[in-house]
Amino acid sequence: MKATIINIGDELLIGQVVNTNAAQMSQMLITGGFDVVGVYTIGDNGDAIRDTLSNCLKISNIVLITGGLGPTKDDITKKVLCDFFHSELYENEEALENVKKRLAAHGRELTPINRQQAWVPRACTMVNNILGTAPCMWFELPDSTPAPVVVSLPGVPFEMVNLMQTEVVPRLQQHFRTDCILNKNLLVQGIGESFLSDLIEPWELALPANIRLAYLPQPGLTKLRLTARGSDFTQLQQQVDAALKTLYPIAGEYIVGEDLETMPELVAQTMLSRGFTLATAESCTGGAVAAKLTALAGASEYFVGGVVSYSNAVKESALGVRHETLAAHGAVSEETAREMAVGVRERLNADFGVATTGIAGPGGGSPEKPVGTVWIAVASPHGVFTKKLSCPGRRAQVIERTCSELYGLLVKRAKELPAK
Amino acid sequence: MKATIINIGDELLIGQVVNTNAAQMSQMLITGGFDVVGVYTIGDNGDAIRDTLSNCLKISNIVLITGGLGPTKDDITKKVLCDFFHSELYENEEALENVKKRLAAHGRELTPINRQQAWVPRACTMVNNILGTAPCMWFELPDSTPAPVVVSLPGVPFEMVNLMQTEVVPRLQQHFRTDCILNKNLLVQGIGESFLSDLIEPWELALPANIRLAYLPQPGLTKLRLTARGSDFTQLQQQVDAALKTLYPIAGEYIVGEDLETMPELVAQTMLSRGFTLATAESCTGGAVAAKLTALAGASEYFVGGVVSYSNAVKESALGVRHETLAAHGAVSEETAREMAVGVRERLNADFGVATTGIAGPGGGSPEKPVGTVWIAVASPHGVFTKKLSCPGRRAQVIERTCSELYGLLVKRAKELPAK
Repeated sequence: MKATIINIGDELLIGQVVNTNAAQMSQMLITGGFDVVGVYTIGDNGDAIRDTLSNCLKISNIVLITGGLGPTKDDITKKVLCDFFHSELYENEEALENVKKRLAAHGRELTPINRQQAWVPRACTMVNNILGTAPCMWFELPDSTPAPVVVSLPGVPFEMVNLMQTEVVPRLQQHFRTDCILNKNLLVQGIGESFLSDLIEPWELALPANIRLAYLPQPGLTKLRLTARGSDFTQLQQQVDAALKTLYPIAGEYIVGEDLETMPELVAQTMLSRGFTLATAESCTGGAVAAKLTALAGASEYFVGGVVSYSNAVKESALGVRHETLAAHGAVSEETAREMAVGVRERLNADFGVATTGIAGPGGGSPEKPVGTVWIAVASPHGVFTKKLSCPGRRAQVIERTCSELYGLLVKRAKELPAK
Repeated sequence: MKATIINIGDELLIGQVVNTNAAQMSQMLITGGFDVVGVYTIGDNGDAIRDTLSNCLKISNIVLITGGLGPTKDDITKKVLCDFFHSELYENEEALENVKKRLAAHGRELTPINRQQAWVPRACTMVNNILGTAPCMWFELPDSTPAPVVVSLPGVPFEMVNLMQTEVVPRLQQHFRTDCILNKNLLVQGIGESFLSDLIEPWELALPANIRLAYLPQPGLTKLRLTARGSDFTQLQQQVDAALKTLYPIAGEYIVGEDLETMPELVAQTMLSRGFTLATAESCTGGAVAAKLTALAGASEYFVGGVVSYSNAVKESALGVRHETLAAHGAVSEETAREMAVGVRERLNADFGVATTGIAGPGGGSPEKPVGTVWIAVASPHGVFTKKLSCPGRRAQVIERTCSELYGLLVKRAKELPAK
């Protein structure tokens, strides 16, 4: 089953907002067992919406549309879809109840403008959007069997994500009677993508035909996704388990996590399940190690705090790095990283202290310590572990990779210890 | 002049990579005086590339294509364009020299595979890509006057940006003999978008017809962009200066910066121009205040470091917040924010200390202090300034808005002091 995505909105077209919906929707469609063949961003323009929708229906059975569902006059998606399906608008009771509920939650009255949000074309099945006032609309075209489907979703990211997860993808799977899909994520670290590919190629070639493998590389991390497809879920589970059983002897040393999307999630899971606390000491990452961890709700359960020691003076005063260490080895050195990690662990009274110090660039490099040279350290109850990184790329990539590698080293060491 | 963008790459289509190129290219085209009417993301698929290109040429005079220019067999853009323009590939000397230079910079030898990067269709004008091995290719269609243009660019973001800025946009402006364009950015804070719009509406209506105003809202900040279009650059400059002269008496109190894109840039400019140093103390933002500042190169010139005091214990031990303050007022309070800012300023020995403490959510709220309640503080040589925020939205938005408001308060207070 082929799907296309149309993201409507002048703010996307002029580049004011980066279109993150597209990637999220693609991922959800693909893990749901559908192929995505095109993503189209257009403005709030009737002709563009009509033409793009017609083109999409020529190359796909599923067209998902986001945006243009607000109550202002710029937002014309509903009107255009109503015309496209030769239908007329009516006030949907369930949608109206939801609009009232949403407004009440924000202490607001129902206005005539807001009431319009509950009007939907008769040709559609209204799908309630419990997180917002714009309903989701499901249209079917009687052209063929199974009928091609057009779904209009709100453009607000968290409303769209919730509707996709709870309503749209399950309904699509039912409508098209697709196979069961089982996805399994593995986080892999410490080996480059091409080396990993060489290492596991024989294993990949021996996978059953109904299991596909995808490589999703990020700086300092490769996510492997196994997608199994078939009629029986239990059987898929057995197949995937069997595949993992043969993968671990080959590449197990590089597999740091299962069933997670990101390294910060893996850190949270590892620390929380073992009852460990964490403190961070950052130089070249400038707060990013802590910010990525605390972007996840519940971080306060294990993360006590951190120090961003950008200057050498702060490395000394706030972390207790010795002046002689900085003088003898420089700020970017194994010794400094070690003392930062030990210092923050002691001063912030945590089970683990982690540290980064390096040259993020573009300036500051030297022949001995070029841009991208980074030392990371993990101080644990059982000692201190350090690692030198040579990060390719620009400032943002150096910071990204350093965070990822540090999370990996921390998790590895934390897993070696018994839970508290 | 209408433009379309085609971003080619399976990694974009499956949602593995968020398409940030699209927004950057749109912005550059629009500030260059062109309209963007559609953005299309497709896979590395010959038919899709051909069909999409044909469709784009029906609705635009300019088609910019990114991606699919690597040396591996997945990358087919060059081959498809060569066929589309009924041309043949040849080895371009200038491109070959550039490939050799790029490889040498990374200590690598020229291989037959890499050498292929220097082959381009005879039908195109080769535009050298000094940051990468894939050349940019400029095609013209002799259909009409001025000839429609198709440009193929590499998908690597920094290579694309450099080529757009230095080559593609200037060449497009020359080719289509477009008007001069003058863009002026204003960063506005402390007033919601709709209130701002009401406030300056009379001024906006009185703008000359060749000046357009765009609102680009972000959490805690609105960017206003004036775009003036005309034949004479000096005259545009005078017009924009005159427009600003009448804007400041109306809304000057909310304008925090000119000619900048982001608040971290404004912080850097303000602190560096005055010779001030800065230290950060963060609770609810968890390191994001520091990470956003240090994401910009050169931050070490004014940023000495910071403390992420997530737990109360760290607020006391690392920042000197008094136990009685936390007990009497709680961690999320004006008093705690004040003591955090003063503490980090003193302990890290900076001119300015800034602090955040609040409830980012989704948990942790109470009737008196609901999710989104945040106190920010700025400790300066002349005293401490605090502000309470009530941030709508989810965790990420609360953090984003808090950072933005804090940067604004810091800049305001720093500008009141004479340079050191």
